[in-house]
Amino acid sequence: MLGEFELIRRFFQSPETAPGVVVGIGDDAAVLRVPDGCDLVAAVDTLVESRHFPAGSDPRSIGHRALAVNLSDLAAMGAEPAWATLALTLPSADAAWLEGFASGLRTLARRHGVTLVGGDTTRGPLTISIQIMGFVPRGAALLRGGARAGDLLAVTGTLGDAGAGLALVQAGAAAQVPELVRRFEYPTPRVEMGLAARGIATAAMDLSDGIVGDLEKLAAASGLAAQVDVDRLPLSAALVSYATAAQARDWALGAGDDYELLFAVPAARAAALADAAAALDLRLTVIGELAHGRGVTWSSKGAKFAPAVGGFDHFA
Amino acid sequence: MLGEFELIRRFFQSPETAPGVVVGIGDDAAVLRVPDGCDLVAAVDTLVESRHFPAGSDPRSIGHRALAVNLSDLAAMGAEPAWATLALTLPSADAAWLEGFASGLRTLARRHGVTLVGGDTTRGPLTISIQIMGFVPRGAALLRGGARAGDLLAVTGTLGDAGAGLALVQAGAAAQVPELVRRFEYPTPRVEMGLAARGIATAAMDLSDGIVGDLEKLAAASGLAAQVDVDRLPLSAALVSYATAAQARDWALGAGDDYELLFAVPAARAAALADAAAALDLRLTVIGELAHGRGVTWSSKGAKFAPAVGGFDHFA
Repeated sequence: MLGEFELIRRFFQSPETAPGVVVGIGDDAAVLRVPDGCDLVAAVDTLVESRHFPAGSDPRSIGHRALAVNLSDLAAMGAEPAWATLALTLPSADAAWLEGFASGLRTLARRHGVTLVGGDTTRGPLTISIQIMGFVPRGAALLRGGARAGDLLAVTGTLGDAGAGLALVQAGAAAQVPELVRRFEYPTPRVEMGLAARGIATAAMDLSDGIVGDLEKLAAASGLAAQVDVDRLPLSAALVSYATAAQARDWALGAGDDYELLFAVPAARAAALADAAAALDLRLTVIGELAHGRGVTWSSKGAKFAPAVGGFDHFA
Repeated sequence: MLGEFELIRRFFQSPETAPGVVVGIGDDAAVLRVPDGCDLVAAVDTLVESRHFPAGSDPRSIGHRALAVNLSDLAAMGAEPAWATLALTLPSADAAWLEGFASGLRTLARRHGVTLVGGDTTRGPLTISIQIMGFVPRGAALLRGGARAGDLLAVTGTLGDAGAGLALVQAGAAAQVPELVRRFEYPTPRVEMGLAARGIATAAMDLSDGIVGDLEKLAAASGLAAQVDVDRLPLSAALVSYATAAQARDWALGAGDDYELLFAVPAARAAALADAAAALDLRLTVIGELAHGRGVTWSSKGAKFAPAVGGFDHFA
């Protein structure tokens, strides 16, 4: 069994020096330098075994997701990722498990230039908390509350895939549609799109709990009403061919874990946002608009539509 | 049962605007402004039920300790606390428990001007991770590796009290010596002393895992040998009257949770450090010195002494 300090050193300490890291892992705290003229952007997200991922999940996927869900928060702010701290609680220091976990985490961290600058490893039920830190030029952060009446609503990628993927895993049928399972196990945080949307979108958030619940938050933060045509929700070919139309729609509406971005964008700037997405080879779909008022109205084929699913709430 | 978002809003969201907080709780991430000319200092620490505190502990103490252990890390860097994020995993949203927890956390946060800027609440086995953020003038952070041969070693406060306090709690005898129990349940992070030591001490760390293990890390980080007279370890009157001399010494050497600071200070500056401590009404005791070489040598009454206890390692 590995000791706590050996464990951090062996699996998580990066030998390289990284930009802005004055003091990294190994002291009481990290010392970090935010670039002049930038604000710090910080978020925290936790994954708990059997709640955010099935017990016995591939540790590589767990490591990837633990960082991806945090990167997605930075993406939603239009922030550039820089540093992360890891609080890892695990039942035992299993070297094979740790190698897989660290590898999933490290691969995604390298892709986005994230340096792990602090860690705390404790024994207990498997729980992973990552706090991510990045930066934006002062005043440039994308907020939930910046939308204006008349703005269009647009989402990246496709919705519902991760919900279907999780259902497949839970049914022991992961091999049936691996593309959908992959969307649950290895979500792609839309970091580059968040950066590209700065100065174009008026508001942004990431879709982690399902668009039904998440859109309500954006509309409320902006003090506006939202109208969405559910038939415009972007669905992947894999989801459409696997699920019934009603099932696919429910996953697209209510399932979390897609980590796509939801934007509000003035109609006159929608083409610029679409161009930015196209340059990243990323689908961008206008699904509705914002207006004076409050609440979210869903429609289908010109009629009012009542989603059968709500947003995800851990304590509801 | 409270919903997740209501829970964060009700117990943890601060209504006031706070210095440096451009965007606080409620968006995908917080936006924070580090003062010009300062570096960001960040640390993370996790408390797990039954590991860091007995199951059924007073939630107010848990909230206090979760923040105190993090503030202690900033103190050890000579950093000024500013912001924190909270990742709270709990079995159920019990309002009375949460009120106690939030109250313990809030009271200590206010005392040190800390604003909670982000939170993630999930259901699962009770686990609390706090990441603390603060700042130091560039280049002014106290590190573990800055000590020089000939520097004296000094500790704040008294050692071993929290170890004795925990033992009393575990024995169901908390009422026997409440002062010692209080030192475990409500440790005082030495934030002001850390700030005062900037420019005087050459190295610092906090004593969270017991001085036997912790001093080894400071000596190794500075590339020096340490010599300590165990008879000089500061013991409280409460500990001396409760425990045998050997028991008290073992707690002072090996028990964690005291969260006192350990400093290296040039002999010529020791009086300045003592004055700074005295101004804060804080005991400061020289316990040994650093020299060329490596490892830690303990002595008692002029003879070599071998501690029967090691530092705390969660996976040892």
